[in-house]
Amino acid sequence: MGWPRVFPGPLLILGDVTALPPLEAPLRRFEEALSELVQSDVLFIRLIHQDLVTAGGKRIRPRLVFLASRALGGAPFELELALAVELLHSATLLHDDLIDDAETRRGKEAAFRRYGNAVSVLSGDFLLSRLLHVIAKTGRIELVERFAQVAKTLAEGEVLQFQVAALEDYSLENYERIITAKTAVLMELAAEGPALLKGEPEEVRQALSRFGLLYGQAFQMRDDYLDLMGSPEALGKPVGGDVREGKATLITLLLMERFPEVREILRRKGREPGDLERLRALAQESGVAAEVEGRIRERALLAAKALGPLPPSPYKEALEALALAEARRLA
Amino acid sequence: MGWPRVFPGPLLILGDVTALPPLEAPLRRFEEALSELVQSDVLFIRLIHQDLVTAGGKRIRPRLVFLASRALGGAPFELELALAVELLHSATLLHDDLIDDAETRRGKEAAFRRYGNAVSVLSGDFLLSRLLHVIAKTGRIELVERFAQVAKTLAEGEVLQFQVAALEDYSLENYERIITAKTAVLMELAAEGPALLKGEPEEVRQALSRFGLLYGQAFQMRDDYLDLMGSPEALGKPVGGDVREGKATLITLLLMERFPEVREILRRKGREPGDLERLRALAQESGVAAEVEGRIRERALLAAKALGPLPPSPYKEALEALALAEARRLA
Repeated sequence: MGWPRVFPGPLLILGDVTALPPLEAPLRRFEEALSELVQSDVLFIRLIHQDLVTAGGKRIRPRLVFLASRALGGAPFELELALAVELLHSATLLHDDLIDDAETRRGKEAAFRRYGNAVSVLSGDFLLSRLLHVIAKTGRIELVERFAQVAKTLAEGEVLQFQVAALEDYSLENYERIITAKTAVLMELAAEGPALLKGEPEEVRQALSRFGLLYGQAFQMRDDYLDLMGSPEALGKPVGGDVREGKATLITLLLMERFPEVREILRRKGREPGDLERLRALAQESGVAAEVEGRIRERALLAAKALGPLPPSPYKEALEALALAEARRLA
Repeated sequence: MGWPRVFPGPLLILGDVTALPPLEAPLRRFEEALSELVQSDVLFIRLIHQDLVTAGGKRIRPRLVFLASRALGGAPFELELALAVELLHSATLLHDDLIDDAETRRGKEAAFRRYGNAVSVLSGDFLLSRLLHVIAKTGRIELVERFAQVAKTLAEGEVLQFQVAALEDYSLENYERIITAKTAVLMELAAEGPALLKGEPEEVRQALSRFGLLYGQAFQMRDDYLDLMGSPEALGKPVGGDVREGKATLITLLLMERFPEVREILRRKGREPGDLERLRALAQESGVAAEVEGRIRERALLAAKALGPLPPSPYKEALEALALAEARRLA
């Protein structure tokens, strides 16, 4: 690999993502390729994409692909895989704006508010067509099938989340299924994909698969935690979005077991003055917030541990650090 | 082929679709496979699919696949291709309900009115994931790429239609692009696909491709004609849907050239009493309705003629009949 070990292990154990190995070059190629891929001569598609795709994001899924690929010494078609996972994620965001009724997404006015739901949905479909195109470019039909599985699970997870809110069918079991389906399976494919494309031994593929799944779960658990307990300034959006959509997350599910009023607050979608403040106070005072933080840390540690079978490398350490950072991510 | 020629040619020239060769067996297998493919343990997905997918439709695209395949003496993966084209079409309908604000679709209450836009969009995404799955089953990466092209053009066409209505950018050129992109390219793939899968000579593939494209254009032109000039009873839905969405079609475009008031009616989306009646009367009295019918007939004839290079067979005749029927379709 030849990568100088300039950052100490203990720092990484604490999850210092600023010490990741540099991915500037692949990420620059990624941005260029993405911009080219989503070109269209239809004006309204270009406008949507300026909002969502080319304005960037954290590019967590492409980073996962590049790190996993490099932890294996480089996999073929890593760029195509990185593009494909990000396109699926971006399309989901565009189809999600309707669902979440999100007032802001990545700190900007949600696309659909400016051009209507229709254009958002169809621009998402356009991204999905480009996803098909990049996976076709790999010539690997088994990758098409893996994306088919992930896209199916993802859509089912999103619908289930809607269904659970509509039927007030709150349970920890449903929560686990939803975070796995709507977030973790795509992270799993991002991490496992390079092993698949490189034809790595089953043990290595499974290690990356397990890492991606557990990391994805920790990531979504952290997102959900911040949605209620985070700071609006750090997040760049108001807190309590999930409550306003009647969506139960780990904190509200655990609170519900102890305080019947929490179910009422969720039922009325936090519409009464002081509802959100009450939930935040209950979570702090009861120790539920700390308990959830503990569970996130636990999941992140399991993710890092799953990488055991991989040979040591700064990229492996970076993957570990990425997972462990979920224990204290603020935005 | 061994198929008895029980129906006379002249009848078919008039476009008698009741005289098509029987496709009962493949269509039954199609319905069974489709039902199986869209199974989900998520209740809300099942509800949507009962509405749209399993309640059926005319299955025009699968019919095209089966007829084209049999006109070539049978192509591999015809069932998978038929499923894939119908899944893409059905997903578009689900994503279209938002756009069209359609009060009825196939004579039923549009799915989103009962379960919300979110579930419609995500159930459409679920169908797209199943499309990926069936094309992966063929093992043919070139089919993945063809679907990528078609899905891209389709999404662009749908967004363009929205954009043209929003910007009042009415022109015959935009109209041709929209009907080609949102309808004809998928019909083209349905007709051309079997030749692609069978590895037919370029001449045969191009004949079917051209047929599908022209037939698809004639089909959409007829749909648009009926949207204004048809009978609500035959259609099972109110007329004037396009006008209410500010969408110009061939009739309104041609009327606009002669009657400035038509642009005004479209701008106010036919909201004033008597608007739709006025458009219908103008179309009849000015001869524009007849002119549009003539153009549809012309396009349908071109479609039928395109099949020239195919060997004679009842399936080829059935394809011709399907196209010619557009000249007088009422629903």
